[in-house]
Amino acid sequence: MKAEIIAVGTEILLGQIVNTNATFIAQELAKLGIEVYHQSVVGDNGGRLAQSLSIAEKRSDLIVLCGGLGPTPDDLTKQVTAKHVGETLVQNPIGQEKLRHFFEKRNTAMTENNLLQTLVFQNGEALQNPTGLAIGIFYTDRETKSHYLLLPGPPKELIPMFQQHVVPLLQERFPQKEKLYSRVLRFYGIGESRLVTELADLIEQQVNPTIASYAKQNEVTLRLTVKTAQEPVGQRLLDQLEEIILKRVGQFFYGYGEENSLAKVVVQRLKANDKRVTVAESLTGGHVQAMLSAIPGVSSVFPGGFVTYSAQTKSDFLQIPMDLLETYGTVSQECVEAMAAQSLKLAQTDYSLAFTGVAGPDSLEGQEVGTVWIALATKNQGVVSHCYHFESHREGIQASAVMAGLGMLYQALEK
Amino acid sequence: MKAEIIAVGTEILLGQIVNTNATFIAQELAKLGIEVYHQSVVGDNGGRLAQSLSIAEKRSDLIVLCGGLGPTPDDLTKQVTAKHVGETLVQNPIGQEKLRHFFEKRNTAMTENNLLQTLVFQNGEALQNPTGLAIGIFYTDRETKSHYLLLPGPPKELIPMFQQHVVPLLQERFPQKEKLYSRVLRFYGIGESRLVTELADLIEQQVNPTIASYAKQNEVTLRLTVKTAQEPVGQRLLDQLEEIILKRVGQFFYGYGEENSLAKVVVQRLKANDKRVTVAESLTGGHVQAMLSAIPGVSSVFPGGFVTYSAQTKSDFLQIPMDLLETYGTVSQECVEAMAAQSLKLAQTDYSLAFTGVAGPDSLEGQEVGTVWIALATKNQGVVSHCYHFESHREGIQASAVMAGLGMLYQALEK
Repeated sequence: MKAEIIAVGTEILLGQIVNTNATFIAQELAKLGIEVYHQSVVGDNGGRLAQSLSIAEKRSDLIVLCGGLGPTPDDLTKQVTAKHVGETLVQNPIGQEKLRHFFEKRNTAMTENNLLQTLVFQNGEALQNPTGLAIGIFYTDRETKSHYLLLPGPPKELIPMFQQHVVPLLQERFPQKEKLYSRVLRFYGIGESRLVTELADLIEQQVNPTIASYAKQNEVTLRLTVKTAQEPVGQRLLDQLEEIILKRVGQFFYGYGEENSLAKVVVQRLKANDKRVTVAESLTGGHVQAMLSAIPGVSSVFPGGFVTYSAQTKSDFLQIPMDLLETYGTVSQECVEAMAAQSLKLAQTDYSLAFTGVAGPDSLEGQEVGTVWIALATKNQGVVSHCYHFESHREGIQASAVMAGLGMLYQALEK
Repeated sequence: MKAEIIAVGTEILLGQIVNTNATFIAQELAKLGIEVYHQSVVGDNGGRLAQSLSIAEKRSDLIVLCGGLGPTPDDLTKQVTAKHVGETLVQNPIGQEKLRHFFEKRNTAMTENNLLQTLVFQNGEALQNPTGLAIGIFYTDRETKSHYLLLPGPPKELIPMFQQHVVPLLQERFPQKEKLYSRVLRFYGIGESRLVTELADLIEQQVNPTIASYAKQNEVTLRLTVKTAQEPVGQRLLDQLEEIILKRVGQFFYGYGEENSLAKVVVQRLKANDKRVTVAESLTGGHVQAMLSAIPGVSSVFPGGFVTYSAQTKSDFLQIPMDLLETYGTVSQECVEAMAAQSLKLAQTDYSLAFTGVAGPDSLEGQEVGTVWIALATKNQGVVSHCYHFESHREGIQASAVMAGLGMLYQALEK
């Protein structure tokens, strides 16, 4: 089955918003084993949309349209598609009822144009909208055998409608023998180009599973994707490939999954080890603690920490002698180790991570932009520290420092 | 002049990466007054790419292709386009020299396939790549009068090539009488739906300039866009529209520009007022300080602050009596005001912002998820505090609290 996605909306065409709907729909269709051969974007223009439909029906079995189901005059998708396939638009009673209720609850009069949202094809199937008012449509053209899906444009409406109504419908109507199964491996402390070089022969030779690499903010992920009619066979193939990959670059691997992060894995390990950490940040200015505190349930392993951006606060908050700061400077091994040791003492935790350095744009105390000292203090075991030189802009230097520090703690924690 | 954008790459088609190149190119073309009528995505497949070119040349004057200029066998864009327009591929000497130098510097042998990157059309113009190895191409088909631009896929190569080479070329070859001029207005403390409701009549009636709203993380932006042959006239129209808008919703307006933020404006005001701020964060766990410290030059107004996630650190770091925390709880007016007052004292700043509350997922001390207390302490002027109830998930509650706190400080600072 060949599918294509047509996003309707002048704001996408002009580059005012990114077409994330196409990405989402493509991913979902891939999971169902339905292959997408084309994506396109057309503005809120009836004539050009009709032309796009003519092109699409010649080359695709399933045409997924998103956008243009709303109540304003530039929402044309239903009207143009209905005309194209020779359908009549009728009101969907469930949608209409919901619409009435919506306005009643708000005590405002419903203007007539709102009823455009609840129109469906006479011979089509209505797709209810769990989070909005515009009703979606599934329709099969008996003549051309083309299937049409009309979905709302706002992602917060499109995604729930797709997951709740479209996925079951497509699974039932178009069961595919072969489906895609993916596994995401996450790496830190290695750049994408080096990772890809280490795996070059595998990436080139592999057909099923395939390997794709993605550079994220200071980490790299590999997506292994297998196409198979039998999931257990696919999982075994993924296991085998993963083993080969980890033999080569396993020292940089830290976890699985698209939604994972080094901070999450560190928090998991802290919990499993029943240990707590504090943080003293200079150049990272709160980024490490913000990343930790974004994780639900972090309070059992992270009681708090310090942002000591200036020399004065390093002295006042952490009780580091001004003498030390003046003698060695704030971007120094002596300073970062004192930050770690003092914050450990003040917060009474098992670990402390400390960061000092030059995020730029200006150099500091004669030290180059990108110079970063990171220290890890461990209760009853002293302090270790490393000096890094990150070549990046301010944001990149801060992010690299965060990852390097979390990496130090990750390595120190038992699995 | 009608333009269209064709992104080439199976990874976009499968939804593995988002097509941000199309967004970027569309924005740039709009600025030049070149209208984009179609965008499409096609995989690394010669046949389907050729079909896409046939469709494009019938409807567009300028066809911008991106992706598929690399050295691997699935990089086909140059070969397929050359065949389509009847061009011969030849080596670009400058590109070839750069390629040789690249491999020499790394002391590695250059494999033959790398030379695919430096191929250009015999009768085309080479576009040098400031940050990579693949050479771009501009070509005009004398027969069909169609213009072709072939650009690399990685954004870090495409963007510099576009800005340095493509913009001047398009400006010279295709000067457009009318160009688009945009102005972005930023608002906080008002939801998109309310903002749009307040301006509904304007949004509906306005044709030139147009008004478009975008919901960002806890703020809303309005983009006013005018199309004009005379920039001063356009700017005057934007001024007039802005005045009308700000008469209605000016109390929520804080600044201009796509790259602006409330944190940036707050830092600017602190600098202009010659004032400094510290922060004591509980539920926001470092997010406020991370946002401030992301801004270059923040050190003159932000010496540092505290993350006091637990009751113990509130007591230890900020010297808040445990009595007070036990009597009133950590999610209380008493606690947040003590946090603000104590951190102001310890950091010796002019202002302190303090945050405490329940980010969830679990409730805390019998307080509902989303309950947030924020206090602003001002040197010699005492402490004010507000209680908020944010309905969102953990990340949304933290972000809402950050914006509300920055808003309090913004209001307190003189323009």
